[in-house]
Amino acid sequence: MNAEILCVGTEILLGDIVNTNAAFLAKQLAALGINVFYQSVVGDNPERLQHALEHSLNHADLVVMTGGLGPTYDDLTKETVASYFNRKMILNEAWLAHLQEIFQRMNRPMTENNRKQAYLPEGAIVFENDNGTAPGLAIEGDGKVVIMMPGPPREMTYMMREKVMPYLQKFTDGLLLSHTVHIFGMGESQVESVLKEMMVQHENPTIAPYAKEGEVQLRVTAKAASRGQAEEMIRPVLAEIEQVLGDVIYGVDVGTLENAVVQRLREEHLTLATAESCTGGLISKRITDIPGASEIFIGGVCCYSNQIKKQVCGVEAETLKNYGAVSEQTAKELAAGVRNRFCTDIGVSVTGIAGPGGGTPEKPEGLVYVGIDTPWHSEVVKLNLNRGYAGQRQIIRNSSASHALHLILKTLEKRPCRF
Amino acid sequence: MNAEILCVGTEILLGDIVNTNAAFLAKQLAALGINVFYQSVVGDNPERLQHALEHSLNHADLVVMTGGLGPTYDDLTKETVASYFNRKMILNEAWLAHLQEIFQRMNRPMTENNRKQAYLPEGAIVFENDNGTAPGLAIEGDGKVVIMMPGPPREMTYMMREKVMPYLQKFTDGLLLSHTVHIFGMGESQVESVLKEMMVQHENPTIAPYAKEGEVQLRVTAKAASRGQAEEMIRPVLAEIEQVLGDVIYGVDVGTLENAVVQRLREEHLTLATAESCTGGLISKRITDIPGASEIFIGGVCCYSNQIKKQVCGVEAETLKNYGAVSEQTAKELAAGVRNRFCTDIGVSVTGIAGPGGGTPEKPEGLVYVGIDTPWHSEVVKLNLNRGYAGQRQIIRNSSASHALHLILKTLEKRPCRF
Repeated sequence: MNAEILCVGTEILLGDIVNTNAAFLAKQLAALGINVFYQSVVGDNPERLQHALEHSLNHADLVVMTGGLGPTYDDLTKETVASYFNRKMILNEAWLAHLQEIFQRMNRPMTENNRKQAYLPEGAIVFENDNGTAPGLAIEGDGKVVIMMPGPPREMTYMMREKVMPYLQKFTDGLLLSHTVHIFGMGESQVESVLKEMMVQHENPTIAPYAKEGEVQLRVTAKAASRGQAEEMIRPVLAEIEQVLGDVIYGVDVGTLENAVVQRLREEHLTLATAESCTGGLISKRITDIPGASEIFIGGVCCYSNQIKKQVCGVEAETLKNYGAVSEQTAKELAAGVRNRFCTDIGVSVTGIAGPGGGTPEKPEGLVYVGIDTPWHSEVVKLNLNRGYAGQRQIIRNSSASHALHLILKTLEKRPCRF
Repeated sequence: MNAEILCVGTEILLGDIVNTNAAFLAKQLAALGINVFYQSVVGDNPERLQHALEHSLNHADLVVMTGGLGPTYDDLTKETVASYFNRKMILNEAWLAHLQEIFQRMNRPMTENNRKQAYLPEGAIVFENDNGTAPGLAIEGDGKVVIMMPGPPREMTYMMREKVMPYLQKFTDGLLLSHTVHIFGMGESQVESVLKEMMVQHENPTIAPYAKEGEVQLRVTAKAASRGQAEEMIRPVLAEIEQVLGDVIYGVDVGTLENAVVQRLREEHLTLATAESCTGGLISKRITDIPGASEIFIGGVCCYSNQIKKQVCGVEAETLKNYGAVSEQTAKELAAGVRNRFCTDIGVSVTGIAGPGGGTPEKPEGLVYVGIDTPWHSEVVKLNLNRGYAGQRQIIRNSSASHALHLILKTLEKRPCRF
């Protein structure tokens, strides 16, 4: 089955937002064994949208569309697709009731253009939207399939994974099963060069690396008749990868670093506090992104000024004077201080120079210290995250937070057995 | 002049990299007043590339291409374009000498496939590449123009800005100028229904709304012969919008809420501290995303547990006992406590139930209190952010943080003049 991805939205066309949807969809379709030969973007213009749809359907069996399902007058995706397949737009009472409930709960008036979202093409398959007001849709006809999903990535990615992927299974022969190996501390190209032979050798399961904000994930995907058979095929490959890569692997199918940290700390009944300078709350933000974090996360201090480092986190004035705020000593006292102050099992700290500016020859932009303090182990790691990019502030901050989260996982491994 | 953007690269098509080039090029072309009606992506496949090029040239006067100019055998962009225009590939002696020099400087042998990069279509205009080995090219013919640039964003963005933009000036009449009105506290569909008549009425300048993580932006764009003339055309439209929307506008061309907060506090020489429960550091993270935040942001507490609310932020044990952690009283004491403790001009606080779970009939998921304490004004705002979505934890957290940032801006407006 050949597919094309057609994204609708003037904001993408004008470059106001980067089209991350296309990349996400391409990966998902590839995982199902569906080939994507073409991606395109068209604005909220009915004629050009119609033309683009016709062009896509001339070449592909499946067209996956995002965007143009909103309530406003220029949202015309479902009307255009309905017209292509000669389908009427019909009021879907169930979706209307659902919309009314949402607006009632938000205590907002439901406008006439919101009502428009309950009109759906006759005979369309409906994918409920758990994160928004526009449902996803599929229309099958003339041996072709068109999928429509809302444009906001948060709504679309969830719908694609949970609703559309199971629906698309029927168009593929067999099933695809993936496991993801999570790697921290080795770059994508290095992972690739270490595993190159293995990646070329294996055709089923396939091994595909991808980099995501400083982490690398290796996806091992088997195509088989059954789930059990796919698991059988994947197992030896995972073992081989673990043997080659060793301790840069921090888990298999564990999600993000923050997810792994929260799950591990819950399992071990340990509590955590953070003291963040240059990351400014990013670590606590990432930890509290995870539902259930309150079981293990007591709290944190964003100690952006020296005053707070001393007053709230217990760093000695002498330490700041002698070594400066960005130093191994300060990182060490921050981690110990916040752990002590917050009465937790683990204290973690970050202090560094995220830039732009503020660096010196001795302490350049990108110099970051990450500290951890626990009853069984304490450590400070010195990082040089300077890559010489103009906009590296966010890279330095994200990477610092990831190193801190990874340091928690590494320190948990050092924990002696408890009796 | 109508343009299409055609990006060549299997790694984009498979979703291994996100196509940031298209967004960048769209913005650049818009700034020249060149309309982009279509973007597309095709892999490194000669037949499909040829087909995509023909399709683009059927609709557009200008096709801007990136990718496929490298030295490897599957890099076929310039050969495909040359063939479309019936041009021969000719060895460009100047570029060959330039390449030889580059390889000599790097002390690397120049391979035969690098030599291929010196073969250019007959009659092509050459844009030198200051960051790589593939030159950019333009071919003009039959009233059409095709631009080819290398795929790596670092090479392409520089070449586009410094070489291609000056070249394209000759095809444009006039320029486009935009101003963006930033709105908080009114949904996109409501903004549109209020401004509908105005949006339909105005063709130049145009008024286009778009929603971005709970905020709405209205872009007012004028096409004119000069910058001054465009400004003249936009001014009355901005005034009209301000009159209709009133105080849901928090600024014009001010960027994000956090950017507006940091700039305003810098201007007024005021300092800020945060006490965050359910947002878990997201406010301090967003504030410290902005370079220069350290001038105004002293620090924050992520008071995820009651213990920290009492111990670090000074909330009375009685308050927590009588009203609970999610209450107007706790929000009030948190804001005052963190301001007092951190010795700042402004203290801001958030406490609420982000879910999933943890809600009760009296205090449902999505109930959030945002508090502010300043010498001239103190306030607690009660929010109901429950929308009934499964994955609403992040929406509730983001929206709470945005409300807190917006409350800072609103409170600044209430500040009496200082003498």
